[in-house]
Amino acid sequence: MPHIDLGVDDQTFPGMAGLAQYRPDTAGPMLQLAQILLRGPSTLPPGERELIASYVSTLNGCGFMILTHGAFAAAQLDGGMPLVTQVNSDPETAPVSDKLRALLRIAAATRESGRQVSEEAVKAARAAGATDLEIHDTVLIAAATSMFNRYVDGLATSYPDDPAPYAEQAKQVIANGYNTDASF
Amino acid sequence: MPHIDLGVDDQTFPGMAGLAQYRPDTAGPMLQLAQILLRGPSTLPPGERELIASYVSTLNGCGFMILTHGAFAAAQLDGGMPLVTQVNSDPETAPVSDKLRALLRIAAATRESGRQVSEEAVKAARAAGATDLEIHDTVLIAAATSMFNRYVDGLATSYPDDPAPYAEQAKQVIANGYNTDASF
Repeated sequence: MPHIDLGVDDQTFPGMAGLAQYRPDTAGPMLQLAQILLRGPSTLPPGERELIASYVSTLNGCGFMILTHGAFAAAQLDGGMPLVTQVNSDPETAPVSDKLRALLRIAAATRESGRQVSEEAVKAARAAGATDLEIHDTVLIAAATSMFNRYVDGLATSYPDDPAPYAEQAKQVIANGYNTDASF
Repeated sequence: MPHIDLGVDDQTFPGMAGLAQYRPDTAGPMLQLAQILLRGPSTLPPGERELIASYVSTLNGCGFMILTHGAFAAAQLDGGMPLVTQVNSDPETAPVSDKLRALLRIAAATRESGRQVSEEAVKAARAAGATDLEIHDTVLIAAATSMFNRYVDGLATSYPDDPAPYAEQAKQVIANGYNTDASF
């Protein structure tokens, strides 16, 4: 049960969706940021950006966002959920490009603390083909995910464990983007 | 030196200001969020909200945001910089209200991990007079600060150590709010 009364049914509005109903004026810019970072124009495919958010959520142990971003990544990657599961359990051995692996290392460092992102990690990503903007966006996706994870868990929001509604939600996000009207 | 070339003079645009110049479309919603949380209508005074951001930045060891939010808090609190320094070094013994102390404990837990925010900490804040919305906003200020800290440090942005320009910047933020045009 959430720490505060969000005034909505938490089965219809789980996790971030309930918070967006409770305080739409803060959720608005947060979801705009998610939309630009995860679905806006980029040389990183949306599935790979969702994978970064899913991986950071896994390291943060944020159940709701492991389910959401995992489903959104799976729906947009050829490898589907098996690939998402492999990356979340060990990106070093998962079948991803060297560039994406280098970016996942930067995301993991950012999650721990911004000060953990080393010049060597940035150089390695660049050597694997990452652009400055891709490195920038990876750091910001990891930082923003660290915010969303703390927000939904810090207020103890509830959510279904069944992966089915998240796969349905993925279709909505792919069709309509991130917005404050999200519901299950 | 920043990990990527931000294309601006880092003395004129230090920390977050340089990032806002580099990627204004992500900085826009981020600064809107900061504006609503730290300067929007609230029963928590702006100085106390800045103090929460300053304290979380201190726990995260984020030099730029210790200086900015510390200066912004000091400019809006009767206790000034001595109070900010006391809170950042030990909120348990600092001369703040029981309500603010309880909210600072929730902020510290959120910073560590959203899952660290206990039902007991929320009950204690409520018993000290905090409303549900104040508890919500405290969690979100701590979560958002955790994002900003990771962003400015993850890209190794540079900034002046001298506190004087931050005190000047405080006047601008108080007069004009948070926006993407910030410069020194």
